[in-house]
Amino acid sequence: MKLITKENNNYVLRLDEDEELIQTLIAFCKKSRIKSGFFSGLGAAKETVISEYSLAKKRYSDKTIKSEMEIAGLIGNIAKMDKKIIIHAHAILSNFNKGVTGGHVKKLVVGATCEIFLKAINKTIKREFSPEIGLNLMK
Amino acid sequence: MKLITKENNNYVLRLDEDEELIQTLIAFCKKSRIKSGFFSGLGAAKETVISEYSLAKKRYSDKTIKSEMEIAGLIGNIAKMDKKIIIHAHAILSNFNKGVTGGHVKKLVVGATCEIFLKAINKTIKREFSPEIGLNLMK
Amino acid sequence: MKLITKENNNYVLRLDEDEELIQTLIAFCKKSRIKSGFFSGLGAAKETVISEYSLAKKRYSDKTIKSEMEIAGLIGNIAKMDKKIIIHAHAILSNFNKGVTGGHVKKLVVGATCEIFLKAINKTIKREFSPEIGLNLMK
Repeated sequence: MKLITKENNNYVLRLDEDEELIQTLIAFCKKSRIKSGFFSGLGAAKETVISEYSLAKKRYSDKTIKSEMEIAGLIGNIAKMDKKIIIHAHAILSNFNKGVTGGHVKKLVVGATCEIFLKAINKTIKREFSPEIGLNLMK
Repeated sequence: MKLITKENNNYVLRLDEDEELIQTLIAFCKKSRIKSGFFSGLGAAKETVISEYSLAKKRYSDKTIKSEMEIAGLIGNIAKMDKKIIIHAHAILSNFNKGVTGGHVKKLVVGATCEIFLKAINKTIKREFSPEIGLNLMK
Repeated sequence: MKLITKENNNYVLRLDEDEELIQTLIAFCKKSRIKSGFFSGLGAAKETVISEYSLAKKRYSDKTIKSEMEIAGLIGNIAKMDKKIIIHAHAILSNFNKGVTGGHVKKLVVGATCEIFLKAINKTIKREFSPEIGLNLMK
């Protein structure tokens, strides 16, 4: 990952081939002391675990995609839970042969590149487990 | 809906199960005196009316989806028309069984959660009906 | 194209029927002396060339879509390379009959309208050709 530029609370990041999105962003936020914020991005993935949540079953289902996909859209946020950085990201992945899928990003290994604009905020967004919903919701 | 945090003109919102996105955002903007801005988000929907516009027919076609869908991406803006708040939002919805669809959000009832980052701007974006296009365009 | 409003480094743009997205944004950035930044948007397209990159083949494949599609999501950035403005944009396009596709935007001719929020940054993001990846990466 390379920090391309920083202006006030706005960061431009380039993630490189074989870097995993979620872990790379967590490491970057820790190092840069970013507690909260949001981001958007675009690029390509070479391996992805996309997930969808069933409120009825209170359970995630995963779909593993082991082919190159365009990251047609990426939207996410940064929050804290029990002093740990939580990255919540949703993506839309597209491939002309394999089709389009999207949802919750559990894992995304970058393909050609991934370009992210991240806006940090100084206030802390906290997450807390909701037994009713079964997820760590923003508090 | 809960206002999670506010920093300058940046708002972080959490919408909860059964809340309707468009009406909830209109009510929030009114209450918070937000006239204009833009937002992005992610989450899940349990019922959605997605629409697409035909320029040839000058008409929207609606598609009602009564199942849980991941909000894989949500991008929208806030403007005013005849003193009323207008929310214009497009979304991409995904479900592993039902597939992916997207377009203009007429109605979206939140499923597990919906997390929104909203940037208000102080200047007013106005909309006005364009007879040529058949839509209320930004003016 | 119309500049709807400008507040600090935030621009709200409306692109109109038959305007091509990439060329219109390049012309606007030149005129407004915007060197770098990022944007998101929504709207409709009437003709699009969407592309996907194969890292294995180091080659883009194009898909030309000559029908009206909703721009369900649009995320992009602005950078410079050899003193030229480079617009990098990914989009998700949806049509109830034709389905959903997405990826790298080579060309997008606006349909009914296209609404863009653009945040300029004062620092310059540069691109440089990477022989390893085969693309002009952020430097």
